[in-house]
Amino acid sequence: MNTQMIKYIIGYILKLEAGFICLPLFVSFYFKEDMSMHKAYFYTIILLLTAGFALSRKLPKSQKMFAKEGLVSVSLSWIFLSFFGAMPFVFSGFIPSFIDAYFETVSGFTTTGASILTNVEALPRSLLFWRSFTHLVGGMGVLVLALAIIPKSNNQSLHLMKAEVPGPTFGKFVAKMSYNSRILYIIYILMTVLLTVVLALEGMPVFDSVLHAFGTAGTGGFGIKNTSIAYYNSSVIDYTIGIGMLLFSLNFNLYYILLLGNIKQFFKSEEMKWFFSIVFCSVLFICINIHSMYDSVFRLVRDVFFTVASIVSTTGYSTADFDKWPLFSKVILLFLMFMGGCAGSTAGGLKVSRVVILMKSAIREFKKLGNINRIVSLKMEEKPVTKDLMEGISSYLIVYIGVFVIILLGISVSIPDLASAFSAVAATFNNIGPGFEVVGPTQNYSTLTDINKIILSFSMLLGRLEIFPVLILFSPELYKKWHKRNPLKK
Amino acid sequence: MNTQMIKYIIGYILKLEAGFICLPLFVSFYFKEDMSMHKAYFYTIILLLTAGFALSRKLPKSQKMFAKEGLVSVSLSWIFLSFFGAMPFVFSGFIPSFIDAYFETVSGFTTTGASILTNVEALPRSLLFWRSFTHLVGGMGVLVLALAIIPKSNNQSLHLMKAEVPGPTFGKFVAKMSYNSRILYIIYILMTVLLTVVLALEGMPVFDSVLHAFGTAGTGGFGIKNTSIAYYNSSVIDYTIGIGMLLFSLNFNLYYILLLGNIKQFFKSEEMKWFFSIVFCSVLFICINIHSMYDSVFRLVRDVFFTVASIVSTTGYSTADFDKWPLFSKVILLFLMFMGGCAGSTAGGLKVSRVVILMKSAIREFKKLGNINRIVSLKMEEKPVTKDLMEGISSYLIVYIGVFVIILLGISVSIPDLASAFSAVAATFNNIGPGFEVVGPTQNYSTLTDINKIILSFSMLLGRLEIFPVLILFSPELYKKWHKRNPLKK
Repeated sequence: MNTQMIKYIIGYILKLEAGFICLPLFVSFYFKEDMSMHKAYFYTIILLLTAGFALSRKLPKSQKMFAKEGLVSVSLSWIFLSFFGAMPFVFSGFIPSFIDAYFETVSGFTTTGASILTNVEALPRSLLFWRSFTHLVGGMGVLVLALAIIPKSNNQSLHLMKAEVPGPTFGKFVAKMSYNSRILYIIYILMTVLLTVVLALEGMPVFDSVLHAFGTAGTGGFGIKNTSIAYYNSSVIDYTIGIGMLLFSLNFNLYYILLLGNIKQFFKSEEMKWFFSIVFCSVLFICINIHSMYDSVFRLVRDVFFTVASIVSTTGYSTADFDKWPLFSKVILLFLMFMGGCAGSTAGGLKVSRVVILMKSAIREFKKLGNINRIVSLKMEEKPVTKDLMEGISSYLIVYIGVFVIILLGISVSIPDLASAFSAVAATFNNIGPGFEVVGPTQNYSTLTDINKIILSFSMLLGRLEIFPVLILFSPELYKKWHKRNPLKK
Repeated sequence: MNTQMIKYIIGYILKLEAGFICLPLFVSFYFKEDMSMHKAYFYTIILLLTAGFALSRKLPKSQKMFAKEGLVSVSLSWIFLSFFGAMPFVFSGFIPSFIDAYFETVSGFTTTGASILTNVEALPRSLLFWRSFTHLVGGMGVLVLALAIIPKSNNQSLHLMKAEVPGPTFGKFVAKMSYNSRILYIIYILMTVLLTVVLALEGMPVFDSVLHAFGTAGTGGFGIKNTSIAYYNSSVIDYTIGIGMLLFSLNFNLYYILLLGNIKQFFKSEEMKWFFSIVFCSVLFICINIHSMYDSVFRLVRDVFFTVASIVSTTGYSTADFDKWPLFSKVILLFLMFMGGCAGSTAGGLKVSRVVILMKSAIREFKKLGNINRIVSLKMEEKPVTKDLMEGISSYLIVYIGVFVIILLGISVSIPDLASAFSAVAATFNNIGPGFEVVGPTQNYSTLTDINKIILSFSMLLGRLEIFPVLILFSPELYKKWHKRNPLKK
């Protein structure tokens, strides 16, 4: 194991974060905030630079990286990123408990949007900015960003991307994407800027527009008002953010394809078709189910569309209290929570392509029943699903369920009811934010115990990084080899 | 498709059921019950014989049966069996609604034990007998019984057994078991008789002993007192039934092995070891979790052991209201509900062997993380798990989840809360009986709507027959071919 290289990467990421923290510092200056705010950012920057330079003084001789190094670097980077990212909240005194601040920051970077704050509006603007900015960084991935910035990234950096970009079909794009992470990031930023402009034109204050664009782009969902998007009470804004959340849940490679002028291939994407079909059906069924709760059809469609878009994109913005909806609608939302957005997007969950392949495989079993010898082929995106891919997806599902049960068991010690516990795990593990009952859209995570906050922080990391990079840190073999090999190699 | 053979089998099963109904008729005579009771059984017998002889006048020329015919015969037999089995409840007027009676009978045959009765004690003894007797028949399987009775059963009857006996490892025993279904049934009956004797010696009235032995043997769980087993308030009885439920959750092939004198191989069974280990750990953890609710350690261990045995064996007898236990314990129970007993037993759920193989495969993924090229072999019962078996289990899990979600969506239309709906599906699909909240151990299914009773009846059948036999009835291909081939062949 190339521990030197891992240290180097973590160090690099921390230096990058020092750069990020300069942004809220500027915001703080711009809005002439209290001196204590400037200090909070300044101290954090000092700490980050110290740690960053200590870890990455010089490029290690051997830059060899295998999948293992990739996984470990990514998960450790995210853990440290959140550790230091929590400092401004603590130093400024707005979230005095470090565990709370850590939860909030992990929630930001993993684009979950689960909050322990009971009164968001009390936060100074620079902190709100930093909080939403973590969504932007976490959405596309901080290591993907690093790769975009590093001038000559070699093939080995693929392992980093592979570990950070979610979804099963990524493999296909690897060859193309290695030198294209910069283009992907540019598309991402341009779309975010576009969304900001549109929101501002629709009457949202510029500062709010920027922050909500961050939250939408990362499919995060941190609001800056206590009533989330409902505060603006504008149907244009609701639809803009709704559509925005859906667009950021598509595979970014599609936009790259679109950029290359290949419109035909863009519209041929099977995953996208499934995604929009499922969204459409969900909106339809929920509208039918809850229509009696509304006087106006327009308001009904608006709220349902926004909620479905928010949940399926795993963003978590809210305009309606869906915890009050009848169970049928909640079960649909629960399904959407687990499915999430498309592979290669900023959304969480199992990903549309995985769920579709699983559904297809279930239908294949069903078809096989009629005739055991019949060969029913499994296709996705017009290509046959290989046995290896199918095995990978099944394994992921099994591990996903296993980890889910363990987290549920962990937090059930101090949560009284099943629906709350179950949806708290579902909402963090799938990076959504709000769940049902005590963690419903009008509630927050402040009432949880510290241990549960730590467990759910891990749940968010596990969900965002698709389990394995975090799980590898618990592999005893990792430390055995580390121990054995180090004295020999050095 | 050999429809003649399917009709013949169903007819045979209905004639067999006519024989079964004679038993409660005798009970009714013995206890000098009302004339209307005799009539209820008599009419049912007439109906059964009419239908039975109409369907199976003569043995069809071609007795060829493939897997498809096996699946269809089994599921249709079970559906008709429950249809006619419900008649005595309706004719006698004790369950006037046919849907309620059907639910109760399906619940009996599938050994679920979910009841719509609010006052079980109001039922005459003969009806209580019939209700519990369905557990005994359903536990081992009615077609397995038919095979045991039919003098010369050929190899093709394997398809019937395969469709009715649950669990993934069955395949291995097929060759041995074809001529051994009689021995299995004899072991089953002897164990039931033994349990009856023990219970009677411990002071339970003889009639009650017989019925509770039926319920335990089939891991069904229909009680004959409103407070279930708690009524007897005897620690010996609790432990006897508790141990009984566990013993009937073991693979019956193990008893056959024991009968052959192969004690060493009996104790080597990996599935059994896992089963008892999981039971032990569950009892331990729940005891630690709820110890403050009890003054006496003996009472604590007794209640927890009984509940764990009842849930893991998917029986559903209760001595304590586990719905009042803290969530941590409930999550453990929920896990046990989904796992269920061993393959080839009378218990429901996913089965221990499937869950263990799934856990092992998750651990393999975890081990592979440390070294992607490492080959980690997957073994069960000291044999490597083949790719085909693994694929079969993964497919089953996927279909299981899919069907679960559809049933949940179906009943969520008229159940208000998630915990109730979720546990109602879990409790019926895994053939347990009681769930949490509105279907908790002190509650029952009487408050559900008729549509939900029908959906949950299907849920029980799907669970007992392990999905595919019931699912095949919905395969359009089945009817297409039927339609096409019949005029040609006849």
